[in-house]
Amino acid sequence: MASQILSQQLNAFHVILGSKVTHLQILKNFAYNNFRAYGSEQFQPKKAVVLKKMTRYEFEKTVFKGSSEEELKNYLEAKRSDYNGLRSRHETHCRSVDIITKSLLKHGIETKVVSRQEFNSDLIQWADVMFTAGGDGTYLLAASKVLDHDKPLIGINTDPSRSEGCLCLPKEQYSGARFEHALQRLLEGKFRWKRRQRIRITMSGHHENDEPIELHDQELQFYEHRFTEHVGEGETYRQNVNVSENATTPRVLPVLALNEVFIGECLSSRVSYYEIKVDDHPSEKHKSSGIAICTGTGSSSWFYHINNLPRQAIETILGYANELMPGRQTNLLDPNLIYKVTQKYNDSLKFDPSEPKMAFTTRDPVRNGVFQVQHPKGFAKKIQICSRMWDACLVVDGGSSFKFNDGAIATLEIKEEDSLKTVVFD
Amino acid sequence: MASQILSQQLNAFHVILGSKVTHLQILKNFAYNNFRAYGSEQFQPKKAVVLKKMTRYEFEKTVFKGSSEEELKNYLEAKRSDYNGLRSRHETHCRSVDIITKSLLKHGIETKVVSRQEFNSDLIQWADVMFTAGGDGTYLLAASKVLDHDKPLIGINTDPSRSEGCLCLPKEQYSGARFEHALQRLLEGKFRWKRRQRIRITMSGHHENDEPIELHDQELQFYEHRFTEHVGEGETYRQNVNVSENATTPRVLPVLALNEVFIGECLSSRVSYYEIKVDDHPSEKHKSSGIAICTGTGSSSWFYHINNLPRQAIETILGYANELMPGRQTNLLDPNLIYKVTQKYNDSLKFDPSEPKMAFTTRDPVRNGVFQVQHPKGFAKKIQICSRMWDACLVVDGGSSFKFNDGAIATLEIKEEDSLKTVVFD
Repeated sequence: MASQILSQQLNAFHVILGSKVTHLQILKNFAYNNFRAYGSEQFQPKKAVVLKKMTRYEFEKTVFKGSSEEELKNYLEAKRSDYNGLRSRHETHCRSVDIITKSLLKHGIETKVVSRQEFNSDLIQWADVMFTAGGDGTYLLAASKVLDHDKPLIGINTDPSRSEGCLCLPKEQYSGARFEHALQRLLEGKFRWKRRQRIRITMSGHHENDEPIELHDQELQFYEHRFTEHVGEGETYRQNVNVSENATTPRVLPVLALNEVFIGECLSSRVSYYEIKVDDHPSEKHKSSGIAICTGTGSSSWFYHINNLPRQAIETILGYANELMPGRQTNLLDPNLIYKVTQKYNDSLKFDPSEPKMAFTTRDPVRNGVFQVQHPKGFAKKIQICSRMWDACLVVDGGSSFKFNDGAIATLEIKEEDSLKTVVFD
Repeated sequence: MASQILSQQLNAFHVILGSKVTHLQILKNFAYNNFRAYGSEQFQPKKAVVLKKMTRYEFEKTVFKGSSEEELKNYLEAKRSDYNGLRSRHETHCRSVDIITKSLLKHGIETKVVSRQEFNSDLIQWADVMFTAGGDGTYLLAASKVLDHDKPLIGINTDPSRSEGCLCLPKEQYSGARFEHALQRLLEGKFRWKRRQRIRITMSGHHENDEPIELHDQELQFYEHRFTEHVGEGETYRQNVNVSENATTPRVLPVLALNEVFIGECLSSRVSYYEIKVDDHPSEKHKSSGIAICTGTGSSSWFYHINNLPRQAIETILGYANELMPGRQTNLLDPNLIYKVTQKYNDSLKFDPSEPKMAFTTRDPVRNGVFQVQHPKGFAKKIQICSRMWDACLVVDGGSSFKFNDGAIATLEIKEEDSLKTVVFD
């Protein structure tokens, strides 16, 4: 454990050395810091931004546009939504935002509470630290806009009973309602800075200048809510990032992927067809249900759900091995062994968010007399994909979708200067 | 092998006994037939229908609407499509259709060659036998319209170099260009009748009367081309089946699934949310990337690509078992054993198309503190799914898509009277 944490720190150290800007204060912290010596980190922000999620209740109210609360209730009940539940969760969330704001002000930190529409680059520029009040969806949304790799972003879970919140501070002790505990700990320096790598996407070929569309926050309230919208020909959404309108050169997309990039046909039952080049390996033509490329952060999210094996599968495989090997080995059927192998296999899918590498996985690869996929899964530093699809998309963190039709080329890389700064409580 | 074929025949025998209509001729055939005694089947059709696929060349021509061949060539080259390749494959296909037609006429069989638009219930009613000239996509398209379980449908592969054609007669010996060989064999009775089970879908709750939309044949030219279109609110496509417009009672969908039914959010990067009840097991709430439910026919198609494990995964698992078991067993690392276990595991996913059961698989099931999926995979006689989704679809064989939003309920069953009659050459 000790060596693991030390190696993570050395890793982060390397990350900083490798980035263009050298952060002396952080280097100093790292030099003095070891895995038990809390209290040595610096956290004395003067200005904070709190990005609050739009609750489902607020969303329904916006959609409904009706006048009275009674009418809203009837409208929701007609479509079998639980009005009381939505309202009560909304109120819990509002109370949490209130607690967070008051805590920050009490400690003399100037605080701006904003919605997603107001969370822009000027505000990010202004703040010394940013908090999200919501779940992982809200954190992912904020992270996609924080391009400055030295502005810390900290997630606070405001709905711990219904949200897993892996990107937020531990929900048991540091949920929104208990924010004062979290802030105390931060101010006392009892945490580690952590860098989460992100994927940079460069588009070339066709369609490289299409704009993404974003989704309403409420649809991202659960950890695994990877909702997305497809970018239509006509619709565009302006990002607060300079994008040259008529660029003919490759274009870096205005969002970085904290979890994963999905590339494939938009419709889930369609086959995706593309060419892929992983690092220096020869290029391959694939037919599949698309490809997911994740960071260490995303390796415990969708990527994990795609690749993890249930205990039953491991039991079947060890059973077959027992049956087919020359001298049978009844030890293979031991439930304890099956449990341990399952754990180890599934744990091996995850890697540390600070590691500067990507994992990729081909979903449902087609293998037959006509098509082959040599390497359905692996790690990479650089991946290049050329679309051979008709109605395809490139989706970043389930939140922004870009057109990715025949002829479009996407290059995916981890650059250390693209990492996101956050904190961990060990 | 002998016992396997015998058991398949007994199975098929049972199927027929179980169906409402008793086919004395087939029963007689079964009684006299064994796995080597070719020549005992009856195949003396007077009227045949050949459904020919629309080639990609024809499709592009329709879309282009231009005047000269030269202009079409320029149009295709501008979007980097291979004009010469498309044209040449189109001509190969046309020659095959010609060979098929002439063979049938030569043997005194009245023959109608039709496109997908002309392939309707009157024509199916008229024919003694139906052939498809194309790949598996064309076969699936035809099968979805053949509801009469006593009209044989036989697939002929007209593009063996680019299409796997698992639903067609073996492409090496009986491709379109060699149709005379296939017809001879059929007329001599050297084949077995085979029943492929299909899935019947009954919709209730909301949206049960929405109509499907179909796709153009050319997009289904490859075996794994599971293209589909989502049914919009406004667009409807009339099936040649009686569907009551304002039915409030459950409605049986006008298509039967020969391969599989996919249920989930339309967009591939979204999380699907639904309740599922498998046979008599308690109902479960799932978050996943949707669920695929297949027949024996479909168990070697998309379902197989979702569930099969590559050799590398088996190698890793046996490596972990070797490492974690009390007394190490280096036999586990034997490449031959790894190969055999991989084969056996992947083979176990497939089952005979005549078996009256379905297999289901949950794609990327979400498992965390908030969500669980107890049974991601298994067999069933009856599956009921209730949608809790926002923009979801129920897709039959990648060809017909039905809206399946919040409140819609689908019941999936295998009914022996829904099976499709076809032939196999052992």
